[in-house]
This record gives sequence, structure tokens and C-alpha cells, in this order.
Amino acid sequence: MYDLIILGMGPGGYEAALTALRKKLKIAIVEKSKIGGNCLNRACIPTKYFWTGAHQIEKLPILKEYGIDINDYSINFSKAVQGKDKAISFLRKSLNMLLKTKKVPIYKGEGKIIGQNEIEVRKEDGSKEIIKGKNILISTGSIPVSVGNIIPDGKYIITTEDLLEKTEDLPEEIVIIGGGVAGCELGYILSAYGSKVHIVELLDRLLPMPNITEEVSRYLLRKFKKMKIKTYLKTTVESYKIIDNKVQVELSDGNQLLADKMLLSIGRKPNTDIDTIGIVKDEKGFIKVNGKMQTNFENIYACGDVVNSPMLAYTASYEAKIAVDNITGNNVEADYSLIPYVLFSGFEIATVGLNENQAKEKGIEVTTGYYPYTYNEKAVDEHESEGFVRLVFEKDSKRIIGGTIVGTGASELIHIIQMAVKERYTAEDLHNFIYFHPSLSEIFIYATYDIVAGKLF
Amino acid sequence: MYDLIILGMGPGGYEAALTALRKKLKIAIVEKSKIGGNCLNRACIPTKYFWTGAHQIEKLPILKEYGIDINDYSINFSKAVQGKDKAISFLRKSLNMLLKTKKVPIYKGEGKIIGQNEIEVRKEDGSKEIIKGKNILISTGSIPVSVGNIIPDGKYIITTEDLLEKTEDLPEEIVIIGGGVAGCELGYILSAYGSKVHIVELLDRLLPMPNITEEVSRYLLRKFKKMKIKTYLKTTVESYKIIDNKVQVELSDGNQLLADKMLLSIGRKPNTDIDTIGIVKDEKGFIKVNGKMQTNFENIYACGDVVNSPMLAYTASYEAKIAVDNITGNNVEADYSLIPYVLFSGFEIATVGLNENQAKEKGIEVTTGYYPYTYNEKAVDEHESEGFVRLVFEKDSKRIIGGTIVGTGASELIHIIQMAVKERYTAEDLHNFIYFHPSLSEIFIYATYDIVAGKLF
Repeated sequence: MYDLIILGMGPGGYEAALTALRKKLKIAIVEKSKIGGNCLNRACIPTKYFWTGAHQIEKLPILKEYGIDINDYSINFSKAVQGKDKAISFLRKSLNMLLKTKKVPIYKGEGKIIGQNEIEVRKEDGSKEIIKGKNILISTGSIPVSVGNIIPDGKYIITTEDLLEKTEDLPEEIVIIGGGVAGCELGYILSAYGSKVHIVELLDRLLPMPNITEEVSRYLLRKFKKMKIKTYLKTTVESYKIIDNKVQVELSDGNQLLADKMLLSIGRKPNTDIDTIGIVKDEKGFIKVNGKMQTNFENIYACGDVVNSPMLAYTASYEAKIAVDNITGNNVEADYSLIPYVLFSGFEIATVGLNENQAKEKGIEVTTGYYPYTYNEKAVDEHESEGFVRLVFEKDSKRIIGGTIVGTGASELIHIIQMAVKERYTAEDLHNFIYFHPSLSEIFIYATYDIVAGKLF
Repeated sequence: MYDLIILGMGPGGYEAALTALRKKLKIAIVEKSKIGGNCLNRACIPTKYFWTGAHQIEKLPILKEYGIDINDYSINFSKAVQGKDKAISFLRKSLNMLLKTKKVPIYKGEGKIIGQNEIEVRKEDGSKEIIKGKNILISTGSIPVSVGNIIPDGKYIITTEDLLEKTEDLPEEIVIIGGGVAGCELGYILSAYGSKVHIVELLDRLLPMPNITEEVSRYLLRKFKKMKIKTYLKTTVESYKIIDNKVQVELSDGNQLLADKMLLSIGRKPNTDIDTIGIVKDEKGFIKVNGKMQTNFENIYACGDVVNSPMLAYTASYEAKIAVDNITGNNVEADYSLIPYVLFSGFEIATVGLNENQAKEKGIEVTTGYYPYTYNEKAVDEHESEGFVRLVFEKDSKRIIGGTIVGTGASELIHIIQMAVKERYTAEDLHNFIYFHPSLSEIFIYATYDIVAGKLF
């Protein structure tokens, strides 16, 4: 009998394994596909790999400003795919090596919980094996959803997973359904590599989520226009058909597009067909858990995309640690109050805490501080002047309650704001903090100047 | 009569002006050279500009991993110099424009304080003008020091300022005297651009400062060896002479070098020949100030390299704000307990708080957490796997008291550690903080794992 069986080896399962091994638990893993889950194999990690390349392509013309004259170059997406595979394979191998060194049994196959301590693993060859554990962690992740009558075929109609894991050649022209995070990330990447990109979004702006302000949506839209990415807002797909090796798409605004592929990026749903014992799920299929990540069976835990918390790789790993902590006798509960949200599109976009609108909805009066990257010395040194920061403070106390950063480094700088919000820093605390010069972090000095020392104009 | 006259328009003077203008003070500026001081014109900003280029050059071979095939390119340092001049000119113009818009009088010339409220400005044409102020801020910065008989001539024997402001062509071969911050930064840059670089250091390691550990010095030395930068430790210059348009250098270890230039980078001294009224200085020439940055004259303040605090652009701006705050009636004192130290050489190196040795000297028992960039997913995605983090915790309380980060992003990430030290975070606080994935910041999860959850091996 194992101390813990982990069902699904994505960012949740892997973090659980790492923590459990350190805490000397006897663990086993059930995984039907590749170690690392969606995040490593077909989501976060390949996206950021391609983004790095896309951003480099965008920056090629300014290399001459550093005395680097590129006289002849070519862009080859297929080689980027090979590079991506190499990077991911390195990371996957290092995970595998660790599990092997620690002699962790990996049951290859699809697991189903058939008893409070029992998992039946159906292997690829059709054979079955039953394994037993004192505790079980369900971290089986999620799968892409499709809309209405648009059915992915893996060739003309593809999911983000198809694109990130299986696509070898750049589509010359692509229609992306959904202007959310994945749509804006992949649209930028494909465009930078040379695709003609169309993004179709049902709502009236890109990234139409409560934690992204319209200021950010507009800023991104401007960049997309410059890049000649075509966006169709308040628009849906009326119909489509495959003609001559192409997909022909009729939009609700009357436009007709002809592309090599249509990419579905409209969301994901939990992968929770994993038991026969009555683990309780909500109406959307998410497994119900308490703050300790326990299901209705006290020894069965769940984390990540299968539970109804933000569908992010890093909440999965966070929840995994909470679950293992509880299994080993610590009594801790998950706290989602301060999660950073980050995406990599035309630039890095990061946000944490409340923005102006979210604060208003909660009845909090705010004042905001703004500063563009334009005059930040490091940004100028790096020719990375695109971007801005907007910080949100309680009007009376001047304590920071949230912030948005757009531009280079945002995905790291956001943690400074996150910590400041956590510690209830005032604008003055942030302003008088001693930042290195020249650093991007200095934007926080200048975004708080008006509030702390009065306006300049 | 002005409310405040600012003597010297570097990072201290400029920040004072910005703050004073917001606080509605009537100010005037005295500056004998270019607005922006050393930092903008001949130190921090040009260094980071060239570093960006050097790092790009270093990364050119890996662009193919992103499908960017560079078939033909050339490196031209002189064009980088032009790019640098353009960036700096943009920043200088924006400062000038701001001062002009706010109608701030700028007295071009050398200022001397000849009365408690009086400054005599000697202009370039030899004429003199006396201006009066209720308060005076001395922010006249520092100048490079020379050693013994090595006298900079601006041609063969140059200072860092000569190199960063006036040099137009890459020296084919250069001898750098001093393996401290400036020597290691400029040595890396010149080597990346194609110079043959020799670094001569008196002490037994590169970066021989208390806040840089030997672990870091060794790591940098390894990189320099790979880059074929020759280092001569525990070595001095015995003599040198100019022969056939070259400088021939005899080292104490018997080596003889023949180079195009010899660069002096052994430190700076305060530029404090600025008064005739008896402003008190210490034996090294630094102006003595109290915590409010007041000199022995209560209306005369000093900040930056002229006072005996860390010689950094950002302590200058911090002190400038403290001075103006006191001038406008707030009673605040400078606090130097948590200053980040950062340099850009073979990689970014950043440190804050106490390292192991510094803690030991203070009698603090510590435990440290280490993690290499090797397995950080974002670092792998960016082909930036060089680097590591070492965090230092009080042994019993497990509270963080300092940290060193080496590698990409270190100059920004250090502020997260700085804030954590300030807030007395425990290893567990840092470990359970929710970081975005994949981010470099996640190294803090892994550098605290052993302490929080036990060792893996």
C-alpha cells in the first residue's frame, strides 16, 4: 500500500511528488501520457519558448543599434519547433530521471478510482492492474472545449494542444477563434513567425476578462494592428467548410476568410471522468474540494484544473503542496487572494490584486498611479520602451491593492507588486524603496511620484 | 532668492529637482557639463546599453534554436557607440525638456559656495555670476582615481569615463587595471564585441568585495576563461611605456603585455572642491552629513558620491529625496540597511542583505538555500540556464537575511528578496508565495525546498 498515489503528472502531480518525496512518503504515479502534463508538453512551456523566438524576431531590426549588422537571415518555424522539442525533452527527461533515481513506480495508463483506496490502471495493451494507496491525489488536468458545431479534426480545425505539440510547419494563414489569453498569445507568435493571422472574438475587446482592463485591451489591439493581425470583435463563426485543402470560414459580420487552419482557443474543461465511487463534482464537472483540497472522501484529494479554482499551472502546484501538507498532518488551507495573472502576447502583460473596475465593484474608492516605459533608462537601453504600469491604491489610506504591468519584465516585476499588496504597502513605501538603477523596477518610483510628492504638471 | 540651488545635475541633482518641483519649490541648477551627470553620460546608462549589445552578441549562436538562421552578420562597435549616443541623447533631451517646460534656470558653469546662501558660478567664458538660495544641495559626484604613476592621457591610458563617453572604435587589445565592478563589466563588454581583454587585479579574486562571495567570483572567472578573457590575480602593473602607438605593460608576475589601451578602473573619489566657507569633509574628502543629509551648515545639504555612503547612482537619488523632504519640513533620515548591489558582467549579479560571510562576522548562525537556473523552465525556454540563487536564512528562525542571484533577470528579481528581507519573511513564506509559472522568480520556491520540506537526497 502506497502512502500516496498521484493520478496525473502535470504541474500539480509533479509538485505533489516532489514534496511527498521530501517528506519521505512512499508514492506511486499513474500517467496515461507524457510526464509534465499539458503545461510542459502542450501549453505554458512551448508557448513561452515560441514567444522568446517571436520576440527575438521582432527585435532583429534593432540589433543594428548595438552594432550587430544582420546582412542575411531567414525565419524557419519548423526549426523553432525542433528547438522547442529539445528544450521540453530536456525538462521532461530531468523529471523522469529524478523519479527514476528515487525509484518511484510509474504506472503507464489510464487510472480510475474504483475504491476509496483503490485505483484501476488500464494500460495501453488493454491489461489492467489494481494499485492501493492510503491517499490519492487527483491531478488529471483539463482538455480543450469546442464550440457548437466546430469539431477539431487535428488537421484543418486544431486545438491549442495540436498547435503546440504536433504542428511542424507554420500555417500560412490561420483563423483563431477566441481573443482570450491563448488566442492572443498564439496569434502574436504565429504572426511574428510569418503567418497571416485573424482573431475572431465574441466580445467587444481582446482579453475580455475582469482582471484585464480596457486600457490593456486597447494597447494590445494597437500593437496587433501595427503587426497586421486582423481582429474581428463582437463576431462569431457562422459556418465553415473544408475546400481544396483550406478551411473557408463565414463570420457573423459577413466576412469570408480562407485559411490553412482554424485554431480553437476558447477555453478548457476539467478532465474528471476518473472514478466510479461517487466523488462529488459541481454542475460544470469540477471536483468539489474543501480548503485542504479534500474531496468528499477524506483521503482523496484533488488539485489543479480538475477543481474550481483559477485554471493555472501554478495554482495546481500550489494546491498540490497544500494537499501533501495536509496528508502529512499539517493543517493548512489554500488562499487564492493574491494570484498573479500573466500572459505573453504582443508584450508581457501581468496583473495582481484589484484593478480600478474590480475595486469599484467592491465599493472601494481608489486613486491610481501610472508610468510609461518610455523614459525608463533600462527600457531605453534595451530598446524595450513599449509598456506601462498602472498601480491601484485605496484613496484614503494610499495603500496598494493591485497593479497591472505591461511590457518587458512584467512577468517577474508583478511579484514585487504582489508582495507589496500582501504587505499593505503605501505609495510612499513603494516610492522610497531603494531600487537598483537602471532597473525596470524603478517604474514603481515614478508611478507613485504624483501621489507621494504632488503632481509635476 | 531661490528656495533651493542644486549644484550638479547627476542622478542626485535630477531627483532633487523632480521632487522639489512637485513640492512647488523655486529651484535653480548649476551644472558645468552635461545634464544627467556621470551616470547617464559616462557610467551606468552607457554600460547597460553596451551590455545589452554584448549579451545579444553572445546569444546570436542560439537564435537558430528559435528558427532564426543568421547567415551573414558583422559586429561593429562604432555603430554601437552611435546607438548608445542616440539613447543617451534621447534621455538627456527629455530631462532638458522637462526643466525647460518648468522654466528652471540652469547656470552653465562651475559653482562654488562662497557664503551660506551664495554660490558663485564661473562660466565657460570666464565671467562670474552670484546666485542666492535659501537652501543648497551639493550633488557634484565623483571622478576616477588613478594609481601611483599611471597617469591617464585619454589616448593610451584611459579612464572608464573616456571609454564610455569618448571612445569611438573598439580597441583590438586592452589591459584593464582593476577586477572590480567596472573592470568586470567593461571587460565582458569589450570581449563580446571582439577585443582581446586582459584584467589585472591586485587581490586574489574578481570582484573582491565583502558583499560578493567567492562562489560568485569563481563562477565569473570560469565564464571569463571560456570567453578567453585573461585574468591576472594577485598582480600589479610594475611599469608601462608607450611604444609604436601601443602601450607595453610589465606585470608583477613577469608577464609583458602589448595593448592598444590600458583602462584604469580602480575606483572613484568625491568631487568636493566646491566651497570656500568651511563645509566639513572627512579625511577621504567626503562631505560630512547627518541622517537628514545636512552638512555643518543646516541649509546646505549633500548627497550622492560626495558623501560617505555607497557610491551608487540610486543611493544618490534616494538621498536627494531625503534632503528635499527635510527642506520641505518632513523630518526623515536615510536608511541604508537594505541596498541592492547589482552589476552586469558575464551575467547579471545581484545581492542584497547579508551573505554567509557577512552574517558569520556578525555572529549570526545561518543556513542557506541554493538553486541553479539549469532546471528553471523559463530559463530553459530562453536558453538562459547560466546562473543560480543562494539565499541566506537565520538558522533558528529561518528568516531570510540576504541573498545573491546570478543570471538573467537578477537585477530585477533582487528586489523581491530585498522586500522579503525587509518584511522578515521565513523560508516558508517565500516557498508558499504564489509565483507565476513559468517565471524566473520560481527559483525562490526551489531554493527554499530543502529547508521547508526536507532534502530530496
